[in-house]
Amino acid sequence: MAVETRRSIGVGLIGFGTIGTGVVKVLAQNAAVIEQRLGFPLRLVAIADLDTETDRGVDLTGIRFDADAERLIADPAVDIVIELVGGYEVAKRFILAAVAAGKPVVTANKALLALHGKEIFAAAEGAGVDVAFEAAVGGGIPILRSLREGLSANHIDSVMGILNGTTNYVLTQMEETEEDFEVVLKRAQELGYAEADPTFDVDGIDAAHKLALLTAMAFGAELTYEGIPTEGIRNLTPIDFELAREFGYRIKLLGIAKCHREDGGERIEARVHPTMVPAGSMLANVDAAMNAIEVRGDAVGPTLYYGAGAGEMPTASAVVADLIEISREIQRGSAGAVAPLSYLPHHLVPKPLVGLDELAGRFYLRFTAADEPGVLARIAGALGDQGVGIESVVQKGGQDSKAAVPIIVLTHRADEAALVRALAQVDELKDVKAPTVVVRIEEEA
Amino acid sequence: MAVETRRSIGVGLIGFGTIGTGVVKVLAQNAAVIEQRLGFPLRLVAIADLDTETDRGVDLTGIRFDADAERLIADPAVDIVIELVGGYEVAKRFILAAVAAGKPVVTANKALLALHGKEIFAAAEGAGVDVAFEAAVGGGIPILRSLREGLSANHIDSVMGILNGTTNYVLTQMEETEEDFEVVLKRAQELGYAEADPTFDVDGIDAAHKLALLTAMAFGAELTYEGIPTEGIRNLTPIDFELAREFGYRIKLLGIAKCHREDGGERIEARVHPTMVPAGSMLANVDAAMNAIEVRGDAVGPTLYYGAGAGEMPTASAVVADLIEISREIQRGSAGAVAPLSYLPHHLVPKPLVGLDELAGRFYLRFTAADEPGVLARIAGALGDQGVGIESVVQKGGQDSKAAVPIIVLTHRADEAALVRALAQVDELKDVKAPTVVVRIEEEA
Repeated sequence: MAVETRRSIGVGLIGFGTIGTGVVKVLAQNAAVIEQRLGFPLRLVAIADLDTETDRGVDLTGIRFDADAERLIADPAVDIVIELVGGYEVAKRFILAAVAAGKPVVTANKALLALHGKEIFAAAEGAGVDVAFEAAVGGGIPILRSLREGLSANHIDSVMGILNGTTNYVLTQMEETEEDFEVVLKRAQELGYAEADPTFDVDGIDAAHKLALLTAMAFGAELTYEGIPTEGIRNLTPIDFELAREFGYRIKLLGIAKCHREDGGERIEARVHPTMVPAGSMLANVDAAMNAIEVRGDAVGPTLYYGAGAGEMPTASAVVADLIEISREIQRGSAGAVAPLSYLPHHLVPKPLVGLDELAGRFYLRFTAADEPGVLARIAGALGDQGVGIESVVQKGGQDSKAAVPIIVLTHRADEAALVRALAQVDELKDVKAPTVVVRIEEEA
Repeated sequence: MAVETRRSIGVGLIGFGTIGTGVVKVLAQNAAVIEQRLGFPLRLVAIADLDTETDRGVDLTGIRFDADAERLIADPAVDIVIELVGGYEVAKRFILAAVAAGKPVVTANKALLALHGKEIFAAAEGAGVDVAFEAAVGGGIPILRSLREGLSANHIDSVMGILNGTTNYVLTQMEETEEDFEVVLKRAQELGYAEADPTFDVDGIDAAHKLALLTAMAFGAELTYEGIPTEGIRNLTPIDFELAREFGYRIKLLGIAKCHREDGGERIEARVHPTMVPAGSMLANVDAAMNAIEVRGDAVGPTLYYGAGAGEMPTASAVVADLIEISREIQRGSAGAVAPLSYLPHHLVPKPLVGLDELAGRFYLRFTAADEPGVLARIAGALGDQGVGIESVVQKGGQDSKAAVPIIVLTHRADEAALVRALAQVDELKDVKAPTVVVRIEEEA
């Protein structure tokens, strides 16, 4: 190996919240092993954050800390800029400023990259600098490196995973305690597993951001976030978990992307929704706030990557891994040779999304109906009219005959378009008291 | 990115068996995606194998194929040499010849690297060329890249995994069919899951080779294979799987390595043996011929990597990933900046092994004893004498009172040294008819 001696690499950190604090800790506590791998030290020279008052409980000796991000970016002692402010506008401005100053950037900002990645990666390519973002998907799990480098010999067939720790925590808790969504969410917020505004997590938006990045990297598709069908977990109730278990499944919020090779080229299936996976599968056994991503390649077959998908230290682990990789590139006097989205930029081509209405599968359906004679027959009739075959039915009788009761149906394989038509018909029945809850079944997880 | 245009990289393959055939297939079927990631094609220019007769069912148009490995290595059209002949002497000679000719090498040869890696990596470093070996551990799973790059910010605390597909297949089958080891092994051989001489697999030697490589990379320890305590799976019987399940475990052949940080420096615990892991753990759910490796880092916490640990196409996936990475380096005019064993060579220092007799844990013990009054008391007495506490006992009564019966004991946490003394005492009892079978319990898997 051609290891030249370099005194050190200077790192500047913008955004001194939880993850930023983790980065400071990792750089301090693992300075020795990092240098033994890299050949020279990483030196944190400056931190910028609007909040310069809060004590983060870390030693900042020798590190300049103020609110001036622009000064940090311009500082000649800063070789690499870490962006951890989150959000869109400000974060994007800092990243583009760093890139324009010829400085590589490490970020964990999946929302920004999913929506504005095209512009950011184009700017980085133009300036010949790296924008690294391992921490943006799967927290500490080296999933992006694996997809980009470990599986680089493969045509990737599918990527499917538990991409959001908050929702997996809530689902696991609902399953365990048989409590309602709102109760579990409140506790998750108290424990710090969910944010005060949980929308991004529980509605699947965060998972969709991550899936957008994975989809581009897996299939060489131009980065697209808009148009990914996204459903969250708010409609699930304890009975769904109970029935899932009876049928041999567990419920997970999955991001799923598959490549459809067709005559006219490739199209991409991408979607985020609660999913029943076979109880014995690897994904089914991913509990609490952990994440796991399954990647199938034509040569390697199924592979899976598991670990903490969020949190101070796991996410910092990924940020610092990117710092180390970029430091090697700086040492060698070049930007990285591996394209950020795995395919060289001009090979990232628009690939149309496959609509949900073109897919088929098995479905778990929970109807909320009046406990009256003939209801089941009418529901079954609507399904039958559209060619949706019923595999199992469970009707939970209510004690109070006036109350609405759940009727659960497991379908045979059916077209999603037919299901949508059948459910529209069901929703018009006067005995049916609430919209039907649908959980898709993924047998191959 | 500074992507220069290079016409192509020439690849030479030595060893045209199963994996070699897989490499030819992957390079052909995925030529387009590889080029879209790399920017130029990988071109297989020559194959050398003593068997030039067998039809491997792949198209060799434009590829020179003969028995002359030395000519292949010397061929100026060959930029990278793949060594897939296996074994020690010949493989080592080819690798060193390629390195001496300034050509990087890709190999899947864990046995050779575990035993002669020091010499080979030193030669490669001296010549300034890469020796890549992702395929040597975990087949298609990108575990080495993950350990070396994805987790580079971590002090690695432990590595633990199912490193051998053959034994995992046999164990899973024994569990499912309740058949004896010999019966299942024979079927595995017929199905191609086990080799005619299964010693390397079923006695844990192959797993120990892989663990040696993982241990060096995880902990910055000088590569050592000798001295890793290694036990295989020959002594297990159906009753062990039945009891494991009753106690809430599954039995897996694990390679386990942990870093002990002590006052005088670091010592390494490394061992291969059948292990009981909690039934709900990720490792417990790895079935059939699949592999999985769990890596714990101080920042990232537990992570796990799962996939096919062997086989034509999965292993070829890893070989070709290495080709792609090395091709990037050749294009940039340098050898790789990442040290093959993760730590820069002068930071790979000898770290003494922790002896099994220094460890403590819980144990599953199966005694084979005459079905006579007082036997259990004498066994329990021997354990008690040495301070090995009993948590559960199961005695399976035989129909024939003369026959030996199994007595199963689950211990409390105990020193392995005390257990060894107790078992020596037990083995001397005249009622005890066979050596005690010990399965260690790993709660943290």
